[in-house]
This record gives sequence, structure tokens and C-alpha cells, in this order.
Amino acid sequence: MGQVEKRLQELGIQLPELVSPKGSYVLFKQVGDLIFVSGQSAFQGEEALYPGRVGAEVTVEQAREAACETGKLILAILQQAAGTLDRIEIVKVTGYVASTPEFSQQPLVMNALSDLFSQILGERGRHVRATIATSNLAFHCCVEAETVARLLP
Amino acid sequence: MGQVEKRLQELGIQLPELVSPKGSYVLFKQVGDLIFVSGQSAFQGEEALYPGRVGAEVTVEQAREAACETGKLILAILQQAAGTLDRIEIVKVTGYVASTPEFSQQPLVMNALSDLFSQILGERGRHVRATIATSNLAFHCCVEAETVARLLP
Amino acid sequence: MGQVEKRLQELGIQLPELVSPKGSYVLFKQVGDLIFVSGQSAFQGEEALYPGRVGAEVTVEQAREAACETGKLILAILQQAAGTLDRIEIVKVTGYVASTPEFSQQPLVMNALSDLFSQILGERGRHVRATIATSNLAFHCCVEAETVARLLP
Repeated sequence: MGQVEKRLQELGIQLPELVSPKGSYVLFKQVGDLIFVSGQSAFQGEEALYPGRVGAEVTVEQAREAACETGKLILAILQQAAGTLDRIEIVKVTGYVASTPEFSQQPLVMNALSDLFSQILGERGRHVRATIATSNLAFHCCVEAETVARLLP
Repeated sequence: MGQVEKRLQELGIQLPELVSPKGSYVLFKQVGDLIFVSGQSAFQGEEALYPGRVGAEVTVEQAREAACETGKLILAILQQAAGTLDRIEIVKVTGYVASTPEFSQQPLVMNALSDLFSQILGERGRHVRATIATSNLAFHCCVEAETVARLLP
Repeated sequence: MGQVEKRLQELGIQLPELVSPKGSYVLFKQVGDLIFVSGQSAFQGEEALYPGRVGAEVTVEQAREAACETGKLILAILQQAAGTLDRIEIVKVTGYVASTPEFSQQPLVMNALSDLFSQILGERGRHVRATIATSNLAFHCCVEAETVARLLP
């Protein structure tokens, strides 16, 4: 068990079980020391956790919770890819937030995921980010995040 | 002629002619063993193939056809970049699907492109993916896909 | 002072001051010879430069100006990352343009940024690009751009 896994235990954070991709793709792929992770969203069983758009059906707090759960999912995938999160550095996150035209605080939502990465991985969790508003997302999810990480030696 | 080019011939699949970028950019760029490919969409002459949004002007089947044609375009670009598709592995696809707010089956659309890559490249065609719904796309295309591939030795 | 910095001076182009990220992320991160830059948008003080969507509140010319200012911001970040722009090659830009459903000339907007890169960096400024329409963007910005660059030896 790595240092990061110990920290997760201390924080009482349990990473979710991996589920099969919801389409014809793989969860992650490594090229050199880069690990590319497929777009992830938080689900509750078969349904999106908090379906809809922020500003209408979904509140900022709910979207932040979905972003945080999405972050845990990404960490679970990276743990499987690397064996332990001790070898993971987050490079880039592209976050998509389903939003009404009026809602413009998408970064507030994605901060929940970014802060989780920093809390768990420390300096290695700090990353480059782009946050995009979309009119909706697959399966009516409110948040989706695409990640590039680095595998440390 | 490579093994993949022979398979294409057997399958009766002809890759499209490359056309000039529709803006101030290049079709592909290589850095190390990564090949980045510009966002591609399917056109019929100067017009988008199936213009509009899935859920309104465009059906799922039409969007899947556009995604498949987009996939062929990407393969044609990668063939030009690498000389032969035998040296290509698909790493990542980001798919954008112009959608009505109600449509939530974007992965079904992008599967048409992903399945084409697997059919033609086998295991090397399997990739990481993010699928995003957008309110519209340039030139009213219904599908756009951005790709990162790997050049094998 | 590098050759590119001299050219900037000759062209009378001044790169903007860097401002802190508007969220829990870093401006850039280097992995090997790739530099990833966070999504950038043009601001005037605390407010978006030309807030709104192209096709409604924002004209194409205004969005092109925002794209150009965004390009300068990205160059300023890359200059800080590399010490001098002489060592920078642009690899990939993903451009997001807040648009009405009717507006379909997003590439025209992003050309303003792409042309700036070519004007300043020459051949090394030419890049792969994807241009995406979105229903809106964070802080009601009309343009956002995410960049991957290459650090030359």
C-alpha cells in the first residue's frame, strides 16, 4: 500500500469500484510516461448522479459533489493504471459542466475536483485545467472530466 | 502497401482524399511519437454531411454515418502522416456531437467512429475517449472529432 | 532578449502581464518537452472582454479581438515557461467559441489567434486545431483556448 493510499485511508476516502466504459473505448491508455484517461462522470447505479444542467435542475453544490465523485473515479482508474497513486502526477484536466446559458461559475464546480486532487496528491495533484460550459452531456450528467496524468518512475 | 491498407481493400473501404484545412491550421503535427490531428468533420463537397443537431435536424443513424466518415478522414490523415497505417495506434479521441438539450446518447454516435478504428486497426485501434454534447458546431456539422495517435517504430 | 521578443517589439506587440489562475489550477505544466497551458480567455480587469455569445451580444470582429488577446496571454505564459519564445513551438490549440445556435463561423474567430501565432513564431507557430461552439463559457467569456506547446532544446 502506497503513501497516498494510506492518506486516503486516514481521510476516510474510499475510491469507487471501476465500471466498464459506457461505449467502445478503454478507460486509460499509456504512451511513454503519459497516461490518458477517458472522460468520466459520476453515476448512481445506471443513472447520472444529479442529472441536468447547473442553473436549472442542478445546484452548484450538487455539481461540486458530482465533480468530487468524478475525481475519485479518475483516481481509481489511475491507481489501477499505475499500481499505486504514489507514482501519479496529474497533468491536465478538461472539465465540462452542463450549464444554463446564464450560469457562468463553471470554475467553482471544477474546483471541487481540482481541490480533491491537491488534497490527496499534494503538489503532484496540481494541474493545468480548462473548464467548458456545455448545453448538456451524455446521459444528462452535469459534469464530465477528461484527464492526462504522468507516470513517475 | 501495409497490412492495414490490405485489410481496407478487403473490407471495400476507401479512405477519402485529404482536403485543405478550413482555417489557419495544419492537419497534423508530430511531437516525439505522438501525432496530434486537427478536429475533423464529414463534408459533402463544401457543405456539412447532415448539418444540424442530433435530436432535431439529424437522426442518430445519420450522425453515426457522419462519425464513421469522420473516422475515415482521420485515418487518411494518419496514413499520410505515417506512410502506412501499420505504424498507427489510436491513443485518444475527443468527440463533439451537436445535440438538442434532450438528446443524451452521444456515446452511441461516437461508437460508430470508435468501432471503425477497432475494425481496421484491431487492438491498436482501441482508444481513450471523451464525448461532449455541444449546442452546435462549425459549419453546422453534427460531429467533430479530435485525435491523438501514436507512431509505432 | 530572444529573436521572437525582438520581433514582438518591432511589431509593437506587448504581451500582457500574467494574472493568477481563476480557480484551483496552475497556468502551465511541463512533461518532457511538452508544455500544457490552462484554458485562457481575455479579460478587461475583472470582467470578460466582450461578454456573451457570438451571433447575439458579441460580433465576429469583437470575438476575433478577444481571440487575439487570448493568444497574447498564451504567449506570455509560454514565455514565462520557457524563458524565451525562441524555444517555443505551438503544437495544438483547442478553441471554444460561445455561440448562438445559428452562428457557424467559429473557425473565422479562432483564425485571429492562429494567425497571431504564425505571425510571431513563423513556421513554429503553425499548429493543429479543433474549434468548438459552446452555448456559453465561464465568466461569460466569448472565447477560450487551451494549448499544447513544445519546448525546443
